[in-house]
Amino acid sequence: MVQRAFNLSPGPAILPLPALEQARQDIIDYRGTGIGVMELSHRGPEFEAILAETEALLRELLGIPASYKVLFTTGGAHQQFSMVPMNLLTEGLTGNYLLSGLWAEKACDEGRKFGSVHVAGSTKEEGYRKLPQIESISRGAAYLHYCSNNTVIGSQFPTEPDCGDVPLVCDASSDLLSRPIPIERYGLIYAGAQKNLGPAGVTIVVVREDLLSRSRDDLPLMMSYTTYAKSASLFNTPPTFPIYMVCQVLRWIKAEGGLAEMERRNEEKAKLVYDVLDSHAVFVPVVDRGSRSKMNVTFRLRDESLEKELLRLTEARGLPGLKGHRMVGGFRASMYNAFPIEGARALCDALIEFAERHR
Amino acid sequence: MVQRAFNLSPGPAILPLPALEQARQDIIDYRGTGIGVMELSHRGPEFEAILAETEALLRELLGIPASYKVLFTTGGAHQQFSMVPMNLLTEGLTGNYLLSGLWAEKACDEGRKFGSVHVAGSTKEEGYRKLPQIESISRGAAYLHYCSNNTVIGSQFPTEPDCGDVPLVCDASSDLLSRPIPIERYGLIYAGAQKNLGPAGVTIVVVREDLLSRSRDDLPLMMSYTTYAKSASLFNTPPTFPIYMVCQVLRWIKAEGGLAEMERRNEEKAKLVYDVLDSHAVFVPVVDRGSRSKMNVTFRLRDESLEKELLRLTEARGLPGLKGHRMVGGFRASMYNAFPIEGARALCDALIEFAERHR
Repeated sequence: MVQRAFNLSPGPAILPLPALEQARQDIIDYRGTGIGVMELSHRGPEFEAILAETEALLRELLGIPASYKVLFTTGGAHQQFSMVPMNLLTEGLTGNYLLSGLWAEKACDEGRKFGSVHVAGSTKEEGYRKLPQIESISRGAAYLHYCSNNTVIGSQFPTEPDCGDVPLVCDASSDLLSRPIPIERYGLIYAGAQKNLGPAGVTIVVVREDLLSRSRDDLPLMMSYTTYAKSASLFNTPPTFPIYMVCQVLRWIKAEGGLAEMERRNEEKAKLVYDVLDSHAVFVPVVDRGSRSKMNVTFRLRDESLEKELLRLTEARGLPGLKGHRMVGGFRASMYNAFPIEGARALCDALIEFAERHR
Repeated sequence: MVQRAFNLSPGPAILPLPALEQARQDIIDYRGTGIGVMELSHRGPEFEAILAETEALLRELLGIPASYKVLFTTGGAHQQFSMVPMNLLTEGLTGNYLLSGLWAEKACDEGRKFGSVHVAGSTKEEGYRKLPQIESISRGAAYLHYCSNNTVIGSQFPTEPDCGDVPLVCDASSDLLSRPIPIERYGLIYAGAQKNLGPAGVTIVVVREDLLSRSRDDLPLMMSYTTYAKSASLFNTPPTFPIYMVCQVLRWIKAEGGLAEMERRNEEKAKLVYDVLDSHAVFVPVVDRGSRSKMNVTFRLRDESLEKELLRLTEARGLPGLKGHRMVGGFRASMYNAFPIEGARALCDALIEFAERHR
């Protein structure tokens, strides 16, 4: 019997056990074909069914209207930082960026390579400890780009920023499928799979179809959204196994009750841990109350010389991956969809034990 | 006991059983960590060891000198069709392309988007049934690009074309690691993993370090070779599981005797099948003798009305995936490294039975 860890890794992250068990079953012989799931042709009926089911589950769970395309790309959020301006930032328009953390900043820096950029709001001077508001949107705005959940600092927008008719573009790499969202408020939303959706190696893009007409014909083939949209993501060989895994994870989300249930669980887990942090003075949460992430709970110790002791304690309790991002320091508990409530309780027990030792 | 098929798919393709068995073992608990291999952080010691071993095995098996970088990218050969000219086709230089088939042509077409292009040789007018020679190389050549194995038509260069001091760039997606090659003759060589190396989702690039200085700073981040080279392919989250699978496949290649042994087996398998095709008039091989591929054996039937019957026969014999590419028609037997000699014999038996039925 395998003892599964309560893996707090920020991503690649913990996946639901039933999804892994299904993969273990399909890896050598997919449904009696004598062919493992990784060995299936991407043009054959078995993989076509996997791809179709994955898209259908995404549409169902997220409530994606027919006027949106679902694309399966590669290269992670970083590739999207380029693809968004390359495809949507047409000449004469300006890319607007809301800066809430490291990844939002990187997206903005990348945007500058391809056209005019305007910072619509930023809390960089406050070290991103709270979320920015929209201060201004430029004339001729191509889009407003923001990052819904900031994994490094540990903040998360509770709702979509209001930018009126300007297409809203969102890097939702670390919270897509963690809660219900009104997709019709977005022009484009993307996410690397390796947090709530599956393993690393595939990036989901949901885009309103009318925006695709902005793409120029001379873009590098795999950097053009139209390449994926016109071919149903089968222009070339897609990352078949990562897509298969996303499918297994989506099945699990649906079976567990969908996004409303994911949200309920994620709120419960986060509240447990934040309550412990707020009620023990040895802990110093990094982010202001109203801006806190339900995915990545970040904190420091009042006495930073005790950091190694806390890491040793949590690791001994089967809670690996608590170390914070090198740019923030301290600790980060990443508790995506598949992270169980028992893990949050075990983390709380360890934190309380540590706090009582050092109060 | 699973009955494994003799999977003739052109890619994603059959993988070695020991590699799949290892994956099955590691998918829920990687070496007692309580974390599955897909769930490991790409910044943790376990995945770092996997990445380092994968690179070391590639260097050992291919004999890659220290003056070359090994990069793990995504987006398949199509993304390389763009990355090669974006990185290497500096202003004032010309990209030279040798056209031997569909993919070589696509690489050339993509090159035109980024600069000046010269066709160094082509057998397009002969329907690519034989390999092209170099007719001319332009002045100020940035590189000569060719495709070592042409999966669609079924041809393969027996040795590297000679372009003197011009950097040789090769799309080796379907024959890298199928035989020993003199890496030092290449400026850059790349391959999507999904033929001889692993599952779809990772693309290997081996590049002579001095060529990296050509890359401009304003390239999209994930389209710049220097992004991968400077970060040891850890600039962002790489496709960790596909890389892990490549590592398992490389271990198998090494254990079986390395590239010399792979070449011996591949030659033996191909000879068996070509001999049957050449000795029965019902079969019409697609490619001229001197140009034939040892990876993808292509042929038609003298009487094309019998195609469905042959497909039914081979599928009943546990040999799925024999259907040819839609642009060539007929049949294609893809027999990469992991395709066993017993599969080649079973294919021959089926072909002989069919030929005797219809002579």
